[in-house]
Amino acid sequence: MTAFIIGRFQPFHKGHLEIIKTILKDNDHVIIGIGSAQFSHTLTNPFTAGERYLMISNTLEANNIKNFYIVPIEDVNSNPMWVAHVESLTPPFSRVYTNNPLVKRLFYEKKYEVRSLPLLNRKSWSGTRIREKMIKGLDWKDDVPETVYNIITNCLDGINRIRELANTDEDPI
Amino acid sequence: MTAFIIGRFQPFHKGHLEIIKTILKDNDHVIIGIGSAQFSHTLTNPFTAGERYLMISNTLEANNIKNFYIVPIEDVNSNPMWVAHVESLTPPFSRVYTNNPLVKRLFYEKKYEVRSLPLLNRKSWSGTRIREKMIKGLDWKDDVPETVYNIITNCLDGINRIRELANTDEDPI
Amino acid sequence: MTAFIIGRFQPFHKGHLEIIKTILKDNDHVIIGIGSAQFSHTLTNPFTAGERYLMISNTLEANNIKNFYIVPIEDVNSNPMWVAHVESLTPPFSRVYTNNPLVKRLFYEKKYEVRSLPLLNRKSWSGTRIREKMIKGLDWKDDVPETVYNIITNCLDGINRIRELANTDEDPI
Amino acid sequence: MTAFIIGRFQPFHKGHLEIIKTILKDNDHVIIGIGSAQFSHTLTNPFTAGERYLMISNTLEANNIKNFYIVPIEDVNSNPMWVAHVESLTPPFSRVYTNNPLVKRLFYEKKYEVRSLPLLNRKSWSGTRIREKMIKGLDWKDDVPETVYNIITNCLDGINRIRELANTDEDPI
Amino acid sequence: MTAFIIGRFQPFHKGHLEIIKTILKDNDHVIIGIGSAQFSHTLTNPFTAGERYLMISNTLEANNIKNFYIVPIEDVNSNPMWVAHVESLTPPFSRVYTNNPLVKRLFYEKKYEVRSLPLLNRKSWSGTRIREKMIKGLDWKDDVPETVYNIITNCLDGINRIRELANTDEDPI
Amino acid sequence: MTAFIIGRFQPFHKGHLEIIKTILKDNDHVIIGIGSAQFSHTLTNPFTAGERYLMISNTLEANNIKNFYIVPIEDVNSNPMWVAHVESLTPPFSRVYTNNPLVKRLFYEKKYEVRSLPLLNRKSWSGTRIREKMIKGLDWKDDVPETVYNIITNCLDGINRIRELANTDEDPI
Repeated sequence: MTAFIIGRFQPFHKGHLEIIKTILKDNDHVIIGIGSAQFSHTLTNPFTAGERYLMISNTLEANNIKNFYIVPIEDVNSNPMWVAHVESLTPPFSRVYTNNPLVKRLFYEKKYEVRSLPLLNRKSWSGTRIREKMIKGLDWKDDVPETVYNIITNCLDGINRIRELANTDEDPI
Repeated sequence: MTAFIIGRFQPFHKGHLEIIKTILKDNDHVIIGIGSAQFSHTLTNPFTAGERYLMISNTLEANNIKNFYIVPIEDVNSNPMWVAHVESLTPPFSRVYTNNPLVKRLFYEKKYEVRSLPLLNRKSWSGTRIREKMIKGLDWKDDVPETVYNIITNCLDGINRIRELANTDEDPI
Repeated sequence: MTAFIIGRFQPFHKGHLEIIKTILKDNDHVIIGIGSAQFSHTLTNPFTAGERYLMISNTLEANNIKNFYIVPIEDVNSNPMWVAHVESLTPPFSRVYTNNPLVKRLFYEKKYEVRSLPLLNRKSWSGTRIREKMIKGLDWKDDVPETVYNIITNCLDGINRIRELANTDEDPI
Repeated sequence: MTAFIIGRFQPFHKGHLEIIKTILKDNDHVIIGIGSAQFSHTLTNPFTAGERYLMISNTLEANNIKNFYIVPIEDVNSNPMWVAHVESLTPPFSRVYTNNPLVKRLFYEKKYEVRSLPLLNRKSWSGTRIREKMIKGLDWKDDVPETVYNIITNCLDGINRIRELANTDEDPI
Repeated sequence: MTAFIIGRFQPFHKGHLEIIKTILKDNDHVIIGIGSAQFSHTLTNPFTAGERYLMISNTLEANNIKNFYIVPIEDVNSNPMWVAHVESLTPPFSRVYTNNPLVKRLFYEKKYEVRSLPLLNRKSWSGTRIREKMIKGLDWKDDVPETVYNIITNCLDGINRIRELANTDEDPI
Repeated sequence: MTAFIIGRFQPFHKGHLEIIKTILKDNDHVIIGIGSAQFSHTLTNPFTAGERYLMISNTLEANNIKNFYIVPIEDVNSNPMWVAHVESLTPPFSRVYTNNPLVKRLFYEKKYEVRSLPLLNRKSWSGTRIREKMIKGLDWKDDVPETVYNIITNCLDGINRIRELANTDEDPI
């Protein structure tokens, strides 16, 4: 059985890793869709799809997880076409894990088996909170896998990027 | 004389029907543009263009109205191209009915005759209020033509869809 | 039972009309998709989607045919998303009539019932041949319904348009 | 040395003119990108790219400024592709003037020299405030070059346009 | 009176320059649309819109021509929307010069005055032939203004680009 | 060192596998871009990006190859934006392997190290020839890795798809 999950992974954190481990207990393979792949360089979406791909891939390998496929998925501007868009970009699958009402409904209408995700420690494992910590200079090292921390701080100049973007200029030129 | 109106029709309600009847008193035909055709499966735009087409077509037939053309119209991301976009998708027309300031201005700049719509009972005939009633489980049956009520409840699983979409999950996966 | 057919209808000719009559013998309603809706003003696609809509609608009414829905459908640049695109724009249907191998395959993969179209007199009822006759000044009046002939010659300046487009200029300016 | 600046210029005001004069003290040529070129006919973006082109071009000529290139630039929906998009539409340049954090970061990541703009009298030279004055019927003549005032009031019907757009109609038809 | 012409200008050659001089005898200003602005790096369209902009602008200045506006114009995939697209990007104009049948027809249907271009020496002033000469290493220096020759050979590495693109590899990887 | 290659992989054959093995002798990781990701269900591009992803991933795992990233890459309609598009979707890389003149030129202009691919047995390892064999019912089993053969014949109904698409119908409906 192959399962599908989708997230924005801005950034990929320990909660994401736990979810993937949980899914792989009941499924042979997991397809990890990187959602809103076209977005980056904003406060909500600081990292490119390729940067997020690197975070996920290196973390799973470091955790000795194999049976995964990572697929960047750009948004389409028509909800009823979205499932067909995902299907065209991924290996075949029949089970979807999500807590997002729209994702849930769209796959349900296309006859997929949809399961809810286990509730995890939302407080500390939240992309929103991690990005806030990055901007404010607080410690976020423990919220993400070590591989992700290294990629963002060493390889991507990620902290400088998100802090510079946090400066505002209401009316440019 | 052929007239043009556009609306999102989320859903098509009794106010819409009254407007079309009024327009057909002064015009031979009416072109009904289904606006924002690409949107669906959101709280503001729950129904697809095709579902809205079905609501309108069946209601007009049930009311013995004939001289109409229904045309789904997707948004374009350039206002000065929008009138040409509409023209390319519809039979020719020369008169436009609208209360929307942007629609009014765009057709005015292209030399169309633009007329305001008669003021109707806005309180009870409002798409926004009908969608709120659907979500809260209140009675909305009297706000729409019987044909529309039957399509949404029997044919489309429409109430389940809008209620599920109303669940929120801030930070999916 | 509602059936779906799609064509470019450049222009709508007597063969198209025969096909629709045949389909309505076995089905309650027919959805007529106007394919490649975004194309016009070329030798292969001279008429806009709206002009084709007018041809079809007026002809069916003149033939006392009622149970139809006409829907302009723009191309999408991804074949596996095309069926979902059609579904989002049309009332629900479950049976498709087509002789086009791609259309046939795409609907088959989405579990639709797909039927072949009856073979008609292809020689005289061919959009390609009718457009050639228009350009060369030959008689094409008998190839199309009278309503279509009147629309193209009186209402659209259609013959001048296709003849002017047939002039070539290899290297403009 | 050729410099690049980008703005929405809704409308082009005296602050913009001062900035261009300042830049040309240190650079041989300036490329003026008209940003969000696809937007117009909204309260925030009332004028088309072509109308803004006319304002800028005529003003610079009236001020005897020559060494400029004006280029309308539509938005792209992917930030990391935006610099390549600009590069494809403009003559080559190597220095960028901006106070916008995103523009600054995107050009920085592509190895451009990025300079901040001199701080000008932001209070009176603000596009937002000028558009508010237009809507409210206040005097905005002194905020823009005379050429711009003449274009908006004589040539474009610009004041009527922005005032009509300021009317609201929550739920059209 | 402001006139409009459009070309691909791959590259801008002496024939183009003659046409612009001729047009400016009868018109106060000329808007020069750079067509197919999104295309570059192919054998038919080797130069970017920005590179073509530079060729045209520098040549006109070198010839002491002033009253021009240069506007890159990307293609749209709908012919009936193309005129509105051009209008949104350019200063207002009312007269069009073209020999292209499609451009002629589209502006004619939107009520513009359309004039044919004077017939020039097509044999030697042809973009197609100049690009062939570039690829084959023949002499093309006399076919273009000196400014254009210098830009392509000194500033753009243009000859290397078109020659490398002329190598073929049917089945990459 | 991370290397990048791109292909359409319609289908992934033994030549592709040899190339990847060769590249991994000189590089730590290889990013495999699936080009023209949006195309499928045509004679030239029968398989979806997701189906091609599955072929590549399963084959590399079966060959005990690990250090790879697979990324579907849709075409963009602007060559000078293509490299930035690739960069946004992939982990960072600095070396490109290709024999395609356009890919070579585009990466060269963005300062990448570009290497040619080793010449392999083009006659038998050609996507074009394999697709022809599929259509004609000839034996193509030895041209592809066993994993690919099994996916196409067992998991995808791939042979039926390409044969049905090979039927032609010039003028649908």
